[in-house]
Amino acid sequence: MRLRALMIALCFGTAAGAAEPVEPLSADSLQNAAALRDRHVEAGAAYAIVESLTTEVGPRMAGTEADARAVEWARQKFKALGFDGVRIEPFRFPYWRRGHERGEVLAPFPQPLAITALGGSIGTGGAPLEAEIVAFDSIAELQAAPEGAAEGRIVFISQRTQRARDGRGYGLSVIGRSSGAVEAAKKGAVGLIIRSISTNTDRFPHTGIMRYADDVKQIPAAAVSNPDADLLTRMLERGQPVRIRLDIDAENRGEATSYNVIADIRGRERPDEVVVIGGHLDSWDLGTGALDDGAGVGITMAAGAALLKLEQRPRRTVRVIAWGNEEQGLIGARAYAAAQAEQMAKHVIGAESDFGAGRIYALRAGVEPTYWPLLEQIAEVLAPLGIPFEREGGGPGPDVGPLVQRGVPWAQLAQDGMDYFDYHHTANDTLDKIDSEALDQQARAYAVFAYLAAEAESGFGRAPKRP
Amino acid sequence: MRLRALMIALCFGTAAGAAEPVEPLSADSLQNAAALRDRHVEAGAAYAIVESLTTEVGPRMAGTEADARAVEWARQKFKALGFDGVRIEPFRFPYWRRGHERGEVLAPFPQPLAITALGGSIGTGGAPLEAEIVAFDSIAELQAAPEGAAEGRIVFISQRTQRARDGRGYGLSVIGRSSGAVEAAKKGAVGLIIRSISTNTDRFPHTGIMRYADDVKQIPAAAVSNPDADLLTRMLERGQPVRIRLDIDAENRGEATSYNVIADIRGRERPDEVVVIGGHLDSWDLGTGALDDGAGVGITMAAGAALLKLEQRPRRTVRVIAWGNEEQGLIGARAYAAAQAEQMAKHVIGAESDFGAGRIYALRAGVEPTYWPLLEQIAEVLAPLGIPFEREGGGPGPDVGPLVQRGVPWAQLAQDGMDYFDYHHTANDTLDKIDSEALDQQARAYAVFAYLAAEAESGFGRAPKRP
Repeated sequence: MRLRALMIALCFGTAAGAAEPVEPLSADSLQNAAALRDRHVEAGAAYAIVESLTTEVGPRMAGTEADARAVEWARQKFKALGFDGVRIEPFRFPYWRRGHERGEVLAPFPQPLAITALGGSIGTGGAPLEAEIVAFDSIAELQAAPEGAAEGRIVFISQRTQRARDGRGYGLSVIGRSSGAVEAAKKGAVGLIIRSISTNTDRFPHTGIMRYADDVKQIPAAAVSNPDADLLTRMLERGQPVRIRLDIDAENRGEATSYNVIADIRGRERPDEVVVIGGHLDSWDLGTGALDDGAGVGITMAAGAALLKLEQRPRRTVRVIAWGNEEQGLIGARAYAAAQAEQMAKHVIGAESDFGAGRIYALRAGVEPTYWPLLEQIAEVLAPLGIPFEREGGGPGPDVGPLVQRGVPWAQLAQDGMDYFDYHHTANDTLDKIDSEALDQQARAYAVFAYLAAEAESGFGRAPKRP
Repeated sequence: MRLRALMIALCFGTAAGAAEPVEPLSADSLQNAAALRDRHVEAGAAYAIVESLTTEVGPRMAGTEADARAVEWARQKFKALGFDGVRIEPFRFPYWRRGHERGEVLAPFPQPLAITALGGSIGTGGAPLEAEIVAFDSIAELQAAPEGAAEGRIVFISQRTQRARDGRGYGLSVIGRSSGAVEAAKKGAVGLIIRSISTNTDRFPHTGIMRYADDVKQIPAAAVSNPDADLLTRMLERGQPVRIRLDIDAENRGEATSYNVIADIRGRERPDEVVVIGGHLDSWDLGTGALDDGAGVGITMAAGAALLKLEQRPRRTVRVIAWGNEEQGLIGARAYAAAQAEQMAKHVIGAESDFGAGRIYALRAGVEPTYWPLLEQIAEVLAPLGIPFEREGGGPGPDVGPLVQRGVPWAQLAQDGMDYFDYHHTANDTLDKIDSEALDQQARAYAVFAYLAAEAESGFGRAPKRP
């Protein structure tokens, strides 16, 4: 036994090139983790949670009555599963309301368009907005256009989103959604439409948050579905002016309150030190938020529930958070990080599941290389689930971001997101898109990760500074 | 040569068991047909026609302003392609109008439902209809229920549509759509919702025609998408009453006029004898009618255009018809058959392309076995396209039905409809669902078939009487 420990320590030192090797995870901990993986995570448990949330609550946009029901649902669910100290943490944010929304081509070929207002957009002011469209391949092309290039027009950003397992295509195109209205208004536009940030051709427009700038005129902003973007492109190719009508009722009005729902598996030795996992509870209003992010809530709740079945609690506290209002700017996560500012040194590591329901294919982490050997050990337990440790790449889940900014290390259980942007932020984000067995694999992985992270004697240091 | 002809004749006699063998197609005709297949049907021609129709007209529900534009579009397109005697044939029908439509669950778990009114449905009378739902697995189960079983409720027919290449699943479930409102009203229901007649899980409700009966109370009828049907089923499984609200603005009001658009390739020897091919021009209002039935229009127009490139016209007239108002009851086809009643004996055979854009995998026909050898010959030319002659099965395209009722033989170039009911009658029936090369294969097949049918000396007799 001593020899094996020594060998592991040597190995750690070599692998990480660390001056002071960290203490490896104990054989007992690794055994418990294997039991979590193989026995304690109940098959179908994560799916049952998502089924419950999408059936009994459904769409739950932050600040709505349904969001309040979701908070109560999460509180009751955590309690029923036996978590410790189930509590809610309030926060305030600007309230956005969506009303009706209609789009159509007026000329040269009248026909309806499938549109949806982007989150945060103003409406068209009680009457339809009618204008000619002017197309740009990307926001970069729009920014490069001369002053007044879109004067009196509706800008149409036609950029396509490329499919990728890690969602990198979304990263490239989403700026058109978030900043398009500002850039279009700077060129004189009266409105914005974007090709949905979407990887398939179903005729669903994809919503998502957008931003205005204080010193730039606010204009209404909407997404059209991919087939409608194709249609507009074909019309434009015919060389005649394309005139459209947008009739959008939406507004930013006052403030609303929502809540993070927080539940612990209290640590047996160091209850004040915390490993955070979770998903976000809110969704957009169009679908039932099964993939985004009912899945993440179900996976991490089920993982936590499995930890509660162990004979002994983990050394540190494992905290499962159903984050509030992720969609409109990580509002709940920022509130938590601010409230816990003085506890950040006690936050050992954080991971969020918020990338749909595809299987996990890699473990990655934002830790100093010294700690890589610990992640290698965790990955040994994850190996039967098909999850290796990758030293490079990845990033924290969105709600973990505010913790990472305060120095908390992150882990990523990277999900296969190949299909995620087919459904993301649409009416089509529904339970039937989820494979229960894929959720099981993920709940098992989160249980293993959270448990071993809570057991690791040394913790994971602080998050590396990014260049 | 004489020997070969004799051998074919003998062979025909043997294969068909016919008393009087029909005269085989000539070597010249077969050569011309091969040239049509290999050269005269331009790659991309059918797709270009569908592209034009869906871009320049879009949705074109019978009786709407867009339907009138579609008629003019078809007339101009036939003329531009060089067809003979391009003309329109008017007919009248009851006009149905769709307004707004909203559905939602009120209790026990409030959330929106994706619904659409069935074609022909009345609205909810200017105010929302609120009632508890009562589910039936099928219309048969509804019919078998006791009197008053749905008193004051909204009947929910939850039958699923099974996927099949030949669409047989649609045949089994569509009765719930067409007759559900009548059967539900007989049991005291105040409304009907059905699980969409759909084979996938995208959150589109599928519309389609429904009927009332003279002596049964009219109640509003709508489809919910498959994910919404799943949701209602899950709610019902929880054992509490499920109460929903339907707010539908729709009405049957007055009459409208639409048109068949008819164009010929006039026959060189027997211009009064006619081979009919075509697709239907109208669509439902939700999508752009790319698959249903822009594809059929494009395929048969492109096939006809290829025939116009032959050095010699075919012996008989080949008539391409863009049928009007197929969706609401084969209105245009019935009008044509009635107007041409005395010409039915001169209608040699008919085929319609109205099953989406999937490749053709078989040639079938409603002819007496005497004529099978002709179809075997046609299939020899179709063989490189992967299309064998099948003696059994199949049926005429819908708009050919009224001709067949008057004794006109039919042919079916059977398309692979595996995915057809994923998109059928939804907003998602758009151009991007079509593969241009698959349309080419079909246009080639229609050109070969129409040409050889017009060349066949004997014709195809009369349609066999069905038992």
